[in-house]
Parts: sequence; C-alpha cells; structure tokens
Amino acid sequence: MIDNLYAGIDLGGTNIKFGLFTQDGKLCEKWQVPTGEKSPAAIFSKIAEEIRVHAALHGSGTGKVRSVGIGVPGSVDANGKLLDAPNLGWKNLDCAQSLRQWLDIPVFVANDANVAALGEQAYGIGATCSSLVFVTLGTGVGGGVIIDGKLVSGCFGGAGEIGHMVINPQEKNKCSCGKYGCLEQYVSATGLVRMARRMSERTGKSSVFYHMEELTAKNVFDAVRDKDAAAIAVADTFGDILGRAFALISAVVDPEMFVIGGGVSAAGEILTDYVGKYYRKYAFTPSIHTPIRLAALGNDAGIYGAVRMAVQHCDEK
Amino acid sequence: MIDNLYAGIDLGGTNIKFGLFTQDGKLCEKWQVPTGEKSPAAIFSKIAEEIRVHAALHGSGTGKVRSVGIGVPGSVDANGKLLDAPNLGWKNLDCAQSLRQWLDIPVFVANDANVAALGEQAYGIGATCSSLVFVTLGTGVGGGVIIDGKLVSGCFGGAGEIGHMVINPQEKNKCSCGKYGCLEQYVSATGLVRMARRMSERTGKSSVFYHMEELTAKNVFDAVRDKDAAAIAVADTFGDILGRAFALISAVVDPEMFVIGGGVSAAGEILTDYVGKYYRKYAFTPSIHTPIRLAALGNDAGIYGAVRMAVQHCDEK
Repeated sequence: MIDNLYAGIDLGGTNIKFGLFTQDGKLCEKWQVPTGEKSPAAIFSKIAEEIRVHAALHGSGTGKVRSVGIGVPGSVDANGKLLDAPNLGWKNLDCAQSLRQWLDIPVFVANDANVAALGEQAYGIGATCSSLVFVTLGTGVGGGVIIDGKLVSGCFGGAGEIGHMVINPQEKNKCSCGKYGCLEQYVSATGLVRMARRMSERTGKSSVFYHMEELTAKNVFDAVRDKDAAAIAVADTFGDILGRAFALISAVVDPEMFVIGGGVSAAGEILTDYVGKYYRKYAFTPSIHTPIRLAALGNDAGIYGAVRMAVQHCDEK
Repeated sequence: MIDNLYAGIDLGGTNIKFGLFTQDGKLCEKWQVPTGEKSPAAIFSKIAEEIRVHAALHGSGTGKVRSVGIGVPGSVDANGKLLDAPNLGWKNLDCAQSLRQWLDIPVFVANDANVAALGEQAYGIGATCSSLVFVTLGTGVGGGVIIDGKLVSGCFGGAGEIGHMVINPQEKNKCSCGKYGCLEQYVSATGLVRMARRMSERTGKSSVFYHMEELTAKNVFDAVRDKDAAAIAVADTFGDILGRAFALISAVVDPEMFVIGGGVSAAGEILTDYVGKYYRKYAFTPSIHTPIRLAALGNDAGIYGAVRMAVQHCDEK
C-alpha cells in the first residue's frame, strides 16, 4: 500500500490517458479509456471514477491521492480556465472546479502540449536540463516552454503556441487559426505533405512523390535518405522554417535544449539534422550550439508532465 | 543610519550609474561617474570605492551593504560570465568574481537590458504585472523577459536578445551581429532613420525628410502627426515589424504586458498605437489584447532592476 499517490491525466478528443505515480515520479500504473460522450459532466465523472477504482487497486483510497494534474487540448489562461477546446467542443470552462465536483482533491490544469513539455523536461530527453522548449509536430503544431524546471503557462492562454508564430507574412493560404503564414502551415504533418505535393507538381514524374497516392511525413524523410531531389528541397524548406522559429525562440528565452516530438518526429535524427543546419544560420551567436533532440517519452509525455505539475504545486503549498 | 543597504549598478561604456536602496526598493541616493579607463581592475576598483564612500554617507560601512546587482553591456551566460562586451572591450569575464576582489559582498550580474526589464516590472510601468517583455529601442535594440517576477536570464547568454530575432530573412544588408534581417536593422533609432532616408529617396521633395539634414526617430513620428505620407509609410513598416516581433514573442511566453523603452520611445504614444495595430494582426487569438506601454523609469530602469536582482538573490539564500 502506497501512502501518497499522484494522478497525471492527458485528456484528448479520442482517449483519456491516466497514470498513477509516487511523489518522486515513479509510475505505478498507466491505462487509457475512450473519451466517449463529450459533456464536461460525463468526462469528469468518468475521470473521477477511474482514479477511485485504480487508486483502490493500489490499496489507496482517494484520500491517498494527493492531487491530480490534467493536460487539456486547448488554451488555458493564467487562472486555469480552459478558453477553447475545439476537439471537445468546450469553451470558457474551469476544468479544475468541474473535476472537484466529482473528486475533492487539488486539481491543476494546463494546455496538453505545455504539459508534455514539462514531462520531457522532468522525466524525458531533457531530464538533465532546467530549461527547454518542446515542439510537437502532428496534425497541428503545439509546444511548451520550461524555465527553471517550471512550465511557463502564460497570462492569456498563448504560451508555447509555437505553431502559431507568424513565420511567413507573405503567405496567401489561411491557417486554421485565421491568420496567414503560421509555423503550423509548413512543419505539421499536414503542412509537410502539402509542401511535398506542391513540389511534385513542379518536378513531375522525376519525384518519388509523384507515384505515391498516400503521402506521409515519414515518406518525405525516407525519400531524403534515398537522395530524391524533390524530397531534399522539401526537407530544406522544413529545416529553414523550423530552424528559424527555434532561433527566434532562442532570442527570447535562450533554452538549454530544443525537443521535437509528435508524429513527424518518427522520421528520426535526419529531422534534427535539417533543423539544426538552419538554426545555426539564424541564431544569435551565444546560442548557436543549443542542442536539438528528439522527444523520448512518446505518447506518455502528457501523463508524466501532468503528474509533475501536480507534485510541484503540492510542494509549493 | 540604515542597517541594510543594497546597491544597483548600471555599467555603461560612457558612464557608470549607481543607486543605493533599502531592502524594499526605496532609493536612498543615485549618482553617476564617467566610466573612464576600461580595464576590469580600473572599473571594479572604482565601483568598490564609490560604494564604500556613498554607503558611509548614509552612516553605513560596506558591512551594511548586503549585496550588489550589476547590469553589464553584453551577453551573460547561465554561470554569470560576461561573454562579450564590445563597448568595454571585455570578453569571457566573471564580473562578480572580479568585483569581489575589491568588495567582499555578494554580487549578481546580468545583461543591462535584461536588468532594465526587471526594473520596469518591479518598480516601473509593469509594477502591477508578474510577467512582461521589455524592448529598448536605442542605437541598438535590447530587451528582457520577466516571468513570475523573475528575470529569464537564459542558458547561453541569448535571452531577451529581441533585437537579433531574424524578422526578414530576405534582407540583403548585414546586421552588426553578422546575420541578415534582424529586428534591430529596422526598429532601432538607426534603423528608423535609414528607413526614412530610403523612403525620401523614393518620394523626393514631397517628403518632409528630404529637407532635413539631421534626421531622428522623433522627427519621423512628428512628421506622422503632421500627416506626412512618407513618414506614415515608415511608421507603418516600423509598426508591422515590431508588432510581428511582439506577436512572435507572445506565442512563446504570452506576457502580461509589452514595454517599449530607449531613445525612440520619446516619440510617445503614437509609437504604441502603430505597434499595437500590427500586433493584433499577427498575434494568436488568446493574446490579441496584451497591452503595449511606454517605459516609465527612463535611464533609471537599470539601477532599479539591478537592485531588484540583488535583493531577490539575497532573499533566496
């Protein structure tokens, strides 16, 4: 029987991931359930029940679960209010208060990619660093900033929204956020494939992309390894844009490390090679050698970061 | 007689500014001396002597000066080492250790613009904020980032180096740092005047600039108030570039406020109007209304920030 447990939760549009941890971040158990019906009452009562049942399996009543951290798929402001979560259809919701109606222990809430950044810093590739900036390249692009071991959660809900840095104000196509030329439009899985498609329209049959009906980010970097000219051009643009974004970030917070996660990071080290090449072109001299690494925790970064947030807040009190 | 004094120092290439403060940041006395001979021994022995003499004037021996904070004109790494200060001709110098050879009390060192940011957050226009980003527009462009009341000093010496964010990778002219298209090339006093000169070459005699032999940033914004078309075009470009830089910064740390200081800020509120207009165009939705204000402490921001740093570090110990 464990006296003090902490829960880390990654709330997604499809699944809810759970982890129960000891105070020093040792994982006791992890599991996931489908998100199901998307009303706050349905989701938060389910979360409370899951924690109760699984805490009991470890011989602990919920009285022994000291606190809960949750990463949520949307912007969270300085008061912990979730402003907008399109995948859940939620707006302006105090998630901590909502969950506490079902489970009366302290609850700490932050944006899911912010929380994953904290996971990588505390228990992942950045475990030796006190500061890092994390970017997750999936369908969209999210991120998080950790300074002195703490999440920079921002004032209005925009911290770590690296995907919506306007990198190319000349862009004619609109981003999902309504602006033009956001980082997400180029370096997300979707953005990379769009760049590859455009390139193959230009290069025609000579490109390997021309013959692919389904095209993924992994295909692009596999083709780079095969020295396909069109793929190399796409990888160069990708590296130039993400490398410049990292250099812009360095001139603001100068982190100890950059970490790349999300589906696109499955392409491997070749990704960090391309980004690093252009990062060094654009970075201010003192920060020119900041390491750029692939994330280590995969889909578990969320629960690890969430529990870290919960433990940190309890330590402060 | 005051029991505990703290010294805040702003070390510049021309003058050294000093302030003696009480623990709660009340200014007892401020003064300045010419920097003079630029060897570390000459400067640090002079600083120590100044503090000794002025502390005695307040009835305190140096034993009563608990600590010293210094802002220095160059990049400072995570260990407090000054990497490069071109105005002083210093490289790779541990300033804290150097000063302690002359004055045996705790010394805390950071980049001068970083320190000024802390001054504005603790005692200036941002005194109600826990986080802000400060930019100083002078001959060059510096800045600083404050999160949760603390200076983000960065890992390699590049934090708050907002002037060297690469805003326009298509630029053909080189920045003083060796890169192309840095923010400093457009929004510094020098950059603004260069933009105005270029504009007057295009518009010829119709522009008020055409008739000015000496042209300053203030002239540009005065001409905007007089509805001079060329001046308005320059102000628009200025606002577009600085507004986009602020939006990029918001997507990283999402501060509670932006603060503009330095010589160019003498142009007044018209400056923040132009920057705000474009900031709102480029910022990610949650952060779209972040206030943009003019600095309040003028040339004293450095000594106020330096003493704040000294007090904070002593409190932590």
